[in-house]
Amino acid sequence: MNPVSIVASGHTRFGRLDGKNLEDLIVEAASEAIADAAIDPAEIDAVYLGHFNSGMVADGFASSLIHQVSPALRFKPATRCENACASGSAAIFSAINAIRSGSADLVLVVGAEKMTSNTTEQVTRALAGAGYQNNPAEAGLSFPQLFGIAAREYTERYHDPLPAMARIAVKNHRNALDNPLAQMRREVDFEFCNTVSDKNPLIAPPLRLTDCSLISDGAAAVILASPERAKSFARQVSFRAHTHVSDFLPLDKRDFLAFEGPELAIRRAYEEAGISHQDLDFAEVHDCFTIAELLVYEAMGLAPKGQGERALLDGTVMRDGRLPVNLSGGLKAKGHPVGATGVSMHALAFRQLTGTAGGIQREGAELGMVFNMGGAAVANHVSILEATRA
Amino acid sequence: MNPVSIVASGHTRFGRLDGKNLEDLIVEAASEAIADAAIDPAEIDAVYLGHFNSGMVADGFASSLIHQVSPALRFKPATRCENACASGSAAIFSAINAIRSGSADLVLVVGAEKMTSNTTEQVTRALAGAGYQNNPAEAGLSFPQLFGIAAREYTERYHDPLPAMARIAVKNHRNALDNPLAQMRREVDFEFCNTVSDKNPLIAPPLRLTDCSLISDGAAAVILASPERAKSFARQVSFRAHTHVSDFLPLDKRDFLAFEGPELAIRRAYEEAGISHQDLDFAEVHDCFTIAELLVYEAMGLAPKGQGERALLDGTVMRDGRLPVNLSGGLKAKGHPVGATGVSMHALAFRQLTGTAGGIQREGAELGMVFNMGGAAVANHVSILEATRA
Repeated sequence: MNPVSIVASGHTRFGRLDGKNLEDLIVEAASEAIADAAIDPAEIDAVYLGHFNSGMVADGFASSLIHQVSPALRFKPATRCENACASGSAAIFSAINAIRSGSADLVLVVGAEKMTSNTTEQVTRALAGAGYQNNPAEAGLSFPQLFGIAAREYTERYHDPLPAMARIAVKNHRNALDNPLAQMRREVDFEFCNTVSDKNPLIAPPLRLTDCSLISDGAAAVILASPERAKSFARQVSFRAHTHVSDFLPLDKRDFLAFEGPELAIRRAYEEAGISHQDLDFAEVHDCFTIAELLVYEAMGLAPKGQGERALLDGTVMRDGRLPVNLSGGLKAKGHPVGATGVSMHALAFRQLTGTAGGIQREGAELGMVFNMGGAAVANHVSILEATRA
Repeated sequence: MNPVSIVASGHTRFGRLDGKNLEDLIVEAASEAIADAAIDPAEIDAVYLGHFNSGMVADGFASSLIHQVSPALRFKPATRCENACASGSAAIFSAINAIRSGSADLVLVVGAEKMTSNTTEQVTRALAGAGYQNNPAEAGLSFPQLFGIAAREYTERYHDPLPAMARIAVKNHRNALDNPLAQMRREVDFEFCNTVSDKNPLIAPPLRLTDCSLISDGAAAVILASPERAKSFARQVSFRAHTHVSDFLPLDKRDFLAFEGPELAIRRAYEEAGISHQDLDFAEVHDCFTIAELLVYEAMGLAPKGQGERALLDGTVMRDGRLPVNLSGGLKAKGHPVGATGVSMHALAFRQLTGTAGGIQREGAELGMVFNMGGAAVANHVSILEATRA
């Protein structure tokens, strides 16, 4: 079966966007994608929204806010998908199914979240809802606490990951300097990130502030097209593979640190695409916490278990390395408006593969990977994206 | 393209189910569907969850709670779909796309909601979130208020609908007497329903308590199969049509009473199936409020606009009529655990069409319709279901 393609993208700035509500963000990203595609919105067959919410904001029936983009969208089917922090990819994958099922040729997908109108405590509580609440031993654990457990376990099983984690923070902050859409464009050095201080306090031991992604507002959009419909677009980036592996939610039913779900989803994506990590020109991966990115290196096969730091020390994942990871700045510095994140990753990969990524462009990029994760390695979505050469 | 089929169902009792949380409800309905299908859960390729939530409960990452049904579900992709009160149908339609796309042959769909652990005020606020919040004129309106506006507008445009609405309440309460899964199995008479009293107070004028559906806990499940995979099952009910029309959310952008979205979705479903309402043996429709069921009669073409009551007075929609509507008791008396409702409608239609509906069986039913609505006529999902004769 010929693959589905991304043919256009839209992307708001990520950050604290006062004065813009969820609807404004959706409309802004969707409108940009429609303009980028140079289509009449009436040509869109269906819309999907990636949105987490979990009680954070109430602008109204979220999937139907997309109709506000244009009167031409009236009566188009709209569906919201939610897989916690992988909600954006859940929406994209549902859109791919809609196209491959024959029920749609052109689909608009928007991911959006409005977080900064909540207090940090409210956001932390909303995000904690993506953990398992029916086991007293883990109910109510915040996400920093969950990933703090992973970092402590890494120390026990292998060695102290904190220096590697600090290097990831430094790298992603450096990368975000070149991304005008990023929330935090400020260089930080290894010493700062690797030292607990007043300005870099412990959030959930051993995680420091610089090990944690940001609380953000933002939206991103892509337009997906069937193989036939894609031909009329100047730029086409096709899904050579897309895999989705959901693991058990309760921590006592799995070995969280082993990252089995991410590893399986990535391995299957490589197999489906017929590639190895050697073939990738870049990857945008889910660094909700720096320890997560370290574990993703290992799940990707860039280094054996417990040796992910090698990919940093030998330069592999650096912006001028063989396989730069999170050229955008990642969730760490680009920002993490939850429902937007998966769509943002795909939108920026589309830009990389069409040579339109601006300051963060990887020259000559032809093949990229997206890894978007919901919960603590629970919903694992991987895409292998390829530029279609005319 | 050969249609997707429902091959098994599960359904908890609806009602105030103290001691059962969201996970328990999901597991109960899914386990029953798996047993009904007589399959090994390992045969399931993907799972979809219909769940509204909107801040009502937090059992954890909802889509991944389905994995708790069986260790064999580990690593299966799980996705939550949310379209307010049509979340169940949104999950079913996404599952149909997954099958028709070729990515799955056998899909488990569960719809579930836990509402009674919230106060009525909390539920009312959560449901109000399915309205538009960015226009001060309608922000914060409760759903009884929204449908109260529809009833008042019906009076202005046509005539007083309250007697017809009372007849609908009487009919659906009567039907529920024969449904052991229903929440409220108590006969009420026309006089009681049509009179405001201490026991039947005004909720949102002119809506009386008996015009409103219930606050419920519950879950329902179906197993969907590809045409090829369905052949191995004893019972198959196929989708002759499934349509999804989403209307604008803000009330000032449409004529709510005209019910254009439901009407278009139903008309398209008839066309796709090549039928008229004359061919239907029964329908399960979205009577969140009795005025909604009255408007659905008109959208179905059972009577001209403003004359929906005819379908009641001439007996058409009664349980022994030509086209019985809501033999289950409907949302009105069966109950309305929001995310479960769309799946429940499909599960009970499956039972009708396989002669396994017990006390609510319509003898010889071969063709049925499901109409599930999210928001105030915003997300409109229609299925035309047909028994496959061996």
